[in-house]
Amino acid sequence: MSDDRHTNRMQRKKDVVDERISRATEERGVLILLKGNGKGKSSSALGTMARALGHGQRCAVIQFIKGRRETGEYLFFRDQPNLDWHIMGQGFTWETQDRERDIEAAQSAWAVAKGLLENPDYHLIVLDEMSYMFKYGYLDPLPVVEALNQRPAHQNVIITGRTMATPLQEIADTISTVQDERHAFRGGVKAQAGIEY
Amino acid sequence: MSDDRHTNRMQRKKDVVDERISRATEERGVLILLKGNGKGKSSSALGTMARALGHGQRCAVIQFIKGRRETGEYLFFRDQPNLDWHIMGQGFTWETQDRERDIEAAQSAWAVAKGLLENPDYHLIVLDEMSYMFKYGYLDPLPVVEALNQRPAHQNVIITGRTMATPLQEIADTISTVQDERHAFRGGVKAQAGIEY
Repeated sequence: MSDDRHTNRMQRKKDVVDERISRATEERGVLILLKGNGKGKSSSALGTMARALGHGQRCAVIQFIKGRRETGEYLFFRDQPNLDWHIMGQGFTWETQDRERDIEAAQSAWAVAKGLLENPDYHLIVLDEMSYMFKYGYLDPLPVVEALNQRPAHQNVIITGRTMATPLQEIADTISTVQDERHAFRGGVKAQAGIEY
Repeated sequence: MSDDRHTNRMQRKKDVVDERISRATEERGVLILLKGNGKGKSSSALGTMARALGHGQRCAVIQFIKGRRETGEYLFFRDQPNLDWHIMGQGFTWETQDRERDIEAAQSAWAVAKGLLENPDYHLIVLDEMSYMFKYGYLDPLPVVEALNQRPAHQNVIITGRTMATPLQEIADTISTVQDERHAFRGGVKAQAGIEY
């Protein structure tokens, strides 16, 4: 391609992009769902949170499943002044094998989340692996939808987990599905610090 | 479901998970590709990097497209002692509209990346939006594959971008495809600090 043809083509592309940008004018918080069976949902939420922290925004994370404190993400983020990190999980259901305890943990986590969703000081709230709570029937999605709908207008929320409850999908602004096309684990590579946890 | 039935079912699930874990014994660095048209690829790479930093691992980021220094991610990560952050991009092709300059920027970025891929001190290297370099023909994927194959055995590499070059997909350990199911931008919501940048 000649440089002139390249420039013309890029000018046309720029016009299309600029036109799209000019139509997106609403300024408000968004609800983002990160679902699917692929690697990268929680890490994507945390990377977005790093962005928010970089802009001085107050953030909170609630982990609904993970109960460990030795994860790289916790070790890295725990001293951030603008961030609350709540480890409310007890591990996966097949690890705890105790349904009553799982339900209690889910409800405690939701009580904390609900308080954050009412607090305009928080700019971004990450509800990590919350979707399993609906899948297992530990939480009812409808009060969660109600709290999300009533949250402060500027507040961004990210919810992660493999399968997402339908009522949440109905009110979401952005939905990304992370598909597992290949995974090192199935190729025999052990889960490692700095990648999986 | 009764508590007993729940416990039995979870015990069976745990056996399956444990069996899978016992088969994944290889310990080495992995190549992760994050592709697709959905939101969350670069942020996922950065979230994984936060994990690695939390474990005290030395990391590097090379941004092949982005040329801005006011992004939340840069503001947040720039002071990390264990991290090198290289902003080597000039903006998207339709912004620069200058093919020669884009090619020069791509080649400078690759020269830096190649040095990192030879350096065993780096545990995780993020090559952000590198895939566009192959798509536009600014870089040849084959020397990149060669450098990846010869890198230190413990080194993890994450490459992001919408469409991924086939030779990279052939050697990758993990591939996640992030699909855009819905995006706030198309719903009229303006790109915002802390979410998009």
